[in-house]
Amino acid sequence: MTDDTGIGSPEWVELLGREMRKRWSAVADRTEQMAGHALLAPGKMLRPVLLLTSAEATGGDSAQLLPAALAVEYLHVATLVHDDIIDDDRLRRGRPTVHAEYGMADALVTGDFLILNMVTSLSECAAVPRSAVLEAARVLAGAGSDVCRGQVREAEMAGDLSCPVSDYLEMAALKTGALFRGACRAGAVLAGATGEHADAVTRYAEHLGVGFQIFDDLLPYLGDSTGKPATSDVANLRPTHPVLVGREVADDQGRKRFAEALSGRFPAEESHALMRDLLVATGALERSRRRAAEEIAAARDSLDGLPGAAAVEQMRGIADLAIDRSR
Amino acid sequence: MTDDTGIGSPEWVELLGREMRKRWSAVADRTEQMAGHALLAPGKMLRPVLLLTSAEATGGDSAQLLPAALAVEYLHVATLVHDDIIDDDRLRRGRPTVHAEYGMADALVTGDFLILNMVTSLSECAAVPRSAVLEAARVLAGAGSDVCRGQVREAEMAGDLSCPVSDYLEMAALKTGALFRGACRAGAVLAGATGEHADAVTRYAEHLGVGFQIFDDLLPYLGDSTGKPATSDVANLRPTHPVLVGREVADDQGRKRFAEALSGRFPAEESHALMRDLLVATGALERSRRRAAEEIAAARDSLDGLPGAAAVEQMRGIADLAIDRSR
Repeated sequence: MTDDTGIGSPEWVELLGREMRKRWSAVADRTEQMAGHALLAPGKMLRPVLLLTSAEATGGDSAQLLPAALAVEYLHVATLVHDDIIDDDRLRRGRPTVHAEYGMADALVTGDFLILNMVTSLSECAAVPRSAVLEAARVLAGAGSDVCRGQVREAEMAGDLSCPVSDYLEMAALKTGALFRGACRAGAVLAGATGEHADAVTRYAEHLGVGFQIFDDLLPYLGDSTGKPATSDVANLRPTHPVLVGREVADDQGRKRFAEALSGRFPAEESHALMRDLLVATGALERSRRRAAEEIAAARDSLDGLPGAAAVEQMRGIADLAIDRSR
Repeated sequence: MTDDTGIGSPEWVELLGREMRKRWSAVADRTEQMAGHALLAPGKMLRPVLLLTSAEATGGDSAQLLPAALAVEYLHVATLVHDDIIDDDRLRRGRPTVHAEYGMADALVTGDFLILNMVTSLSECAAVPRSAVLEAARVLAGAGSDVCRGQVREAEMAGDLSCPVSDYLEMAALKTGALFRGACRAGAVLAGATGEHADAVTRYAEHLGVGFQIFDDLLPYLGDSTGKPATSDVANLRPTHPVLVGREVADDQGRKRFAEALSGRFPAEESHALMRDLLVATGALERSRRRAAEEIAAARDSLDGLPGAAAVEQMRGIADLAIDRSR
């Protein structure tokens, strides 16, 4: 692997994509067909790449860990399939979602099937000691449980502008950070890393997760058109990082306007435009951007002293790209 | 444990219920609260009991396996929570379903959380070799995947009266049999059983699963009021075992009436009454009942020669009760 990689990590992504196609192109039944539909959409394979690079960064060999890397993608894609049911989203990565293509009932079962395949795939890491594989399974299951907690927490927060920024960061660490953390820690565990080295990639992942989520929150206000619809967050009454930061520094009059923008009483386009104006006026966009950059810097620093220099550089590249997705 | 047990297995059930309450009464957040809502409904704990008795029947000790027994219940209850979303069922075991109480989105996440807790709980079997715990996780994940395949297959079969009985039995082995098989085999694996002994409890579970499902199909026509609404199967256009068996032996005129009864064109009560008449006239009820009894006899016989005599008797009692749930 060269170090000319990042979120794109083209060589890893190609390797993982090839392995994914090998396993999910020729399918045995409709259940596998639906799983394949979800898995074979062109994605960035960010979490599998983090698992493999973490194994190498902590001094291990990633060659035997492809099934584990796929396992973390199964878990991630399961959450996407189920999210799409909840939000009734019809398109993802330019293709119909599983539930748009096959209906709600089958999509729900497909997500369950993918979660269970996480365990099956992990257990295929034959060259790794059984105790390490079991520990990796425990780590990934714990990460998945935390994603669930984060999703429930986020739903509870909907429309709540009085939510402290610290609560928001806790939620983001669960909803988004947990799978990054699970992927990195599982990679280290499977590579036989020392506790200290495993902790280092875990810290990296935690900072990366929060930075990634804050930048995600900024995207709708940066004129970026690659992600979800720009109006999605206000339409779902989500008090995102910049919104909470802006509301915190606003005066009484400003707070009233924040409440209006997140009230759901106006068309989404209108609410979104009002919110953008408020975020610019309060300097919230700049504050959130600075916070995201701080998290990414902390993620980079967490990797100091790890033995796998090339993988460390890749992981730092991934961190940089997390807050500059135009590259 | 005395051998005065069966599906009810009062002492095991009490032990498992106590452990379940200990873990899920004092909860940390809304996610655990919802999981507890689903888990603490009074159930028969059939699958956890099968795991524990299989461990003892194959000569092992079940004392250290409570977390594994809970794990299989987590997986089972997860499928129930998700089934209730799919069928929009509002009541289960006399209480509101998770999705009736907390809404669809949170119920979906709760099911995922329960599947992931299967892995977490399994890994708590500290006294068991890690390789056996990992193998049990693989077995249970494979069983769960098979349940998914069975659910998808069943949905594909809806309204299809030309489905061969053998296809139906294959579907039942996946949808219902797989978790029995997973529970029994995981128990044996965790107990360190020989391959031969593990295979014996696996065969038991496979026969039990098919017998259990066929008897479940008969219940709506036996005047039993303890299970689902009697009209549920015809309302959902399910070609169940007696229906397929009856249709197979019917003449052309009879087949037309079977098609009418499963067409969804008439009120469910009416279709159900017509179907019952057809099943009586074709002798299908008696044929299905006989097949269920044969499966139960085969389940009993599968346990011949296992070392744990008391547990074997318990498992035979469970099999008997599977086709006589009035007791």
